[in-house]
Parts: sequence; structure tokens; C-alpha cells
Amino acid sequence: MTLFRGLSAFPITPTDPHGRVDTDALARLLHRLSTAGVDSIGLLGSTGGYAYLTRPERLRAIEAAVECIGGRTPLMVGVGALRTDYAQDLARDAEAAGAGALLLAPVSYTPLTEDEVHQHYVAVAGATGLPLCIYDNPGTTHFTFSEALLMRLAGVANIDAVKMPLPGDMDFAGEMQRLRPNVPREFAIGYSGDWGCAQALLAGADAWYSVIGGLLPGPALRLTRAAQAGDAAEVRRIDGAFQPLWSLFRELGSLRVVYAAAGILSLLDAVPPRPILPVSAADRQRVSAALDALRRPEVQ
Amino acid sequence: MTLFRGLSAFPITPTDPHGRVDTDALARLLHRLSTAGVDSIGLLGSTGGYAYLTRPERLRAIEAAVECIGGRTPLMVGVGALRTDYAQDLARDAEAAGAGALLLAPVSYTPLTEDEVHQHYVAVAGATGLPLCIYDNPGTTHFTFSEALLMRLAGVANIDAVKMPLPGDMDFAGEMQRLRPNVPREFAIGYSGDWGCAQALLAGADAWYSVIGGLLPGPALRLTRAAQAGDAAEVRRIDGAFQPLWSLFRELGSLRVVYAAAGILSLLDAVPPRPILPVSAADRQRVSAALDALRRPEVQ
Repeated sequence: MTLFRGLSAFPITPTDPHGRVDTDALARLLHRLSTAGVDSIGLLGSTGGYAYLTRPERLRAIEAAVECIGGRTPLMVGVGALRTDYAQDLARDAEAAGAGALLLAPVSYTPLTEDEVHQHYVAVAGATGLPLCIYDNPGTTHFTFSEALLMRLAGVANIDAVKMPLPGDMDFAGEMQRLRPNVPREFAIGYSGDWGCAQALLAGADAWYSVIGGLLPGPALRLTRAAQAGDAAEVRRIDGAFQPLWSLFRELGSLRVVYAAAGILSLLDAVPPRPILPVSAADRQRVSAALDALRRPEVQ
Repeated sequence: MTLFRGLSAFPITPTDPHGRVDTDALARLLHRLSTAGVDSIGLLGSTGGYAYLTRPERLRAIEAAVECIGGRTPLMVGVGALRTDYAQDLARDAEAAGAGALLLAPVSYTPLTEDEVHQHYVAVAGATGLPLCIYDNPGTTHFTFSEALLMRLAGVANIDAVKMPLPGDMDFAGEMQRLRPNVPREFAIGYSGDWGCAQALLAGADAWYSVIGGLLPGPALRLTRAAQAGDAAEVRRIDGAFQPLWSLFRELGSLRVVYAAAGILSLLDAVPPRPILPVSAADRQRVSAALDALRRPEVQ
């Protein structure tokens, strides 16, 4: 069972300028991930632009993914929405289309209270029989989970995992030591923020929810397996090759960078949904150079 | 011409639990505002829950408002959306339905750059012939406008006003002194954050974009007129009666408080869109007490 464990790869969802999903291009990306052997696929995450897609387009993406992956790789689907009833509808769509798990972010406009977020999760988790991963990403949702709320949610039926942001002090071990005794034994704790996730795995995290894993599954798997094996020296070597890319992720936002990288690698030529703009020509050159740094034999 | 000047009243949009607008209840609220003589109405603002409504429901709300107001009060409509093309569609809907102006917030999921927000505004302002007000509200949109970006946008055709958040240092005069020389003469600068807006008007702001004005237009107009007349003593008296309510706005969020107040005043019995919850019974008592404080003769 590799759901919520190991490398979870988050691909772009290629669309036309009107937000219609290019299911052929999506299937090509997903086929690469499944063939490379990632542990799970995170469809319609932040990198997958779920927030910018309509319900019918989200469903088309899931149906294309289920057909393409054919059960070979666990498929988790993002169902975040501003309204509770809408998130429930999206969860039911995902289950009916054959998804294996849900990823739920507490998307907000009016800032939410802890109790509101708790009730939102209970309602969405109860709408289907699928396991659900809490998507804790204050940078996009603008809601910050307290550890107490995470512990409370971990006790809800179907809520089986959390995708955490990098801790401010990068003390993964300390954070997990506080959480683990207060959540069920099988509750999985993983991290996103690609530049810190090898360290998270070395410190005992269950999963790396990865942007670059959705585009370059091979190098991301090398880094994952080294970290899972506890080989800190090998992690250092591979992570070193990723540094120019991590630096651009932090500076330009990983979404803009992976769109540029996908174009440079001739995998697809989609652009992010406007108002998000493609990177400048100069930054595209920098992305290209960062990809070149990954051509070392120990990474490929 | 009272668009973007004086008291702009932002009503709740009453809906059923599935997000269908109750146009009869909305018309009753709007009739109160128009009859009281507010200077403009801000339909589908944050208090109007625009972010939680579908495009067809937003259009139904606008059509009901146009029919009810009948041109007697300038009508501004919120058209914020995560996607640029969707915001353009909403702007065209609003124009076709008879709105008099647009209010555009840079709603974000992936954090936006200044250039992305600039291009977003140019695209939406260019989609119709309606005047547009920049909605600067970092607490909900998670985008912070620099003064340089506001000045740049003030030079775009159709962009005629800004709805600002309260400045951190509450130095309205200083902020307006920096902006005014760098924006067109007719560009209107107004504020939201009800507890600070009488001070903003006293300092020369053009407008108060008001949550409470959407529910209690009489008291809000008294405060507005006193401030517009430069009567600081009268402002102090009236604002004093509002203090218990302002305190609850800051503590519980103005949206939750006005829903409770509308119920207490028997104006409507709608609840906020979930995941947003009604206030607790204890807090409802406190809202009731705060409304009682407004029953003084100088306020009514």
C-alpha cells in the first residue's frame, strides 16, 4: 500500500486558455509517472490548478486519469472548494469516477475559524467512503492548522493523512514527535515544499508530496529512495543537483517554473491559467540551466 | 454623481443552503437601502458573499437588484474571480443586466505578482464600458497592492476608484497625500473597515464602503453625513454608539455579525454559506446588545 507513503507526484493539468482540460496531454504526463513507478499520483493539487477549473473539467481530468493509470498507481484527487456542499459534490464525483483517495484543502475567502474547518472536513469526509488527506497549505488556502486541530481531525473516520507545509524551523523530527503520539498509528504524515522534503523523509516522514515528481519522476524517485534508505550522503549529492531548481521554485513559485520546464522539455506547451503568467524569457533560460544541472548521472 | 462617493452600502446576499439567491429577501434589503438614501449600493461584495456564488446566481442577484432599485441609486457589482476570463464574463453579465459600475478584487489561490494583477485589471476593465473600482482587501484576497501599483492602475481607462483597507498606522491623511498627486484628479479614494471609516471621511476620503450601511443605512448615513460635514464632535458621539458593534466585527468577522444582526432585526433569516457558521447563541446575545446601543436618538 503506497497511498500516502513515499513519492506522491503532482502533475500539471494542461488546459486551453478557456480552462478546458487537454486530456491527451494529461494522459501523456500521467503515463510517464506511472511507468516511472511513483508511489502515488496527486491529481488536481495546487500544481494541477484545481482551484481554476470548473466541476465538469475536474471530472473530465479524473476520468482521463483513471483510464490512463488503470489502477497501477494509487490516485488521489484534490476536491478543495470554498463551499462545503460543492466540495462534497466534487468528492462524490471523484469517487464515482474511480479515484482512490481525496485531498482536501480548506480554501478560504472569508477567513475561517477552527470550528468551521473542523465541520467542513467532517462533512466532506462523510460524503464518500474514500480515504482523505488533509491539505495543510497556508500559502494558498490562508488557513493555518493548529496541531490541536490536526489531532482532532486525525480521529475522524476516513481522514487518514496530512500533507504538511515545511515547518518554519525545519524541525521535522520535533513536529512529528509532537503529532505521532496524538494521532492514530496508521495516520500518515507527509510534507510538501520540494526543497525541504528529502530532509523530511530522512527524519521519518511518510511521504513527499512533490511538484517536481509530477514532471521528473525519475530524479525525484532517486532522491526519495535515498532518503527512505536513510542514506544522508546520497541525499546530499542528489539534492545538490536540485538546488538551482529549488531556488527558482522559491523565487518564482513552483507552478510557474514547472510550466516553463514542461515546455523546455517538450512535454507539453500549455500555459498557466491567467492571471498567472508564464515566466519571462530570461527566467526561462534560468529554468533551462536548472534542468541541465539535473543531467548528472547520479540523478538520472 | 454619488458613485464612489459618500456611503456605499454592502448588503448580504440571502441564499438557501444550496447557494440559490432569495431574490425577494434581497429586494427587501435593497429597497431599505435605496429608500434611506445611501449614495450607492455595493452588490456582491465580500459581505454579499460573491465568492461563494455561481455565475448564474450572481446574475440573478444583479437582475433582481436592477429591477428593485430602478436606477434610483448607483449600483456597483462585485465581479472578482480566480480566472481572468471568468471575471471578464462576470463583468459582461453585470453590464448586460444594467449594473452601473464594477468592483474587482484580485482573488488569488496561487499568490500573484504585481504584473499579473496589473494585466488582470487591464483585461477586466477592458471587457466592458463600466467604471471600475479596485477592491484592495488583503484579508480576503491575499494580495497586497503597493502604492506604485495603485498609481499605475489609476491610469488605466475605466479604472476610476479604489476601495482601500484601513492603513496599519491609521494615517489616512498621509496615505491620501501620497496617492492623490499621482492619480487622476477624479480618481476616488475610499475605505472599508467600518470601525475606521468615519475617521477616513473626516480626513478627506471620498467614500465609506460599509458593511453596516448594508443593514442599518440610517445610522450609517448619520455617521457619514457628520463626517462629510467635518463635525468631529458629532462623529465621536455617533461612532461611540457603534463601538460595541465594531468590537464584535473585529472579533467575530463582520460577515458573521451582520447575518446574526439581520436575524435579530427580523429582516431575514438566512445563514452564511457553509463552511462559515452562524455565531453561537452567546455571541448572538452580544450582537443583540450591540444593536441596542444603537437605539440612542442621536444615531437613529
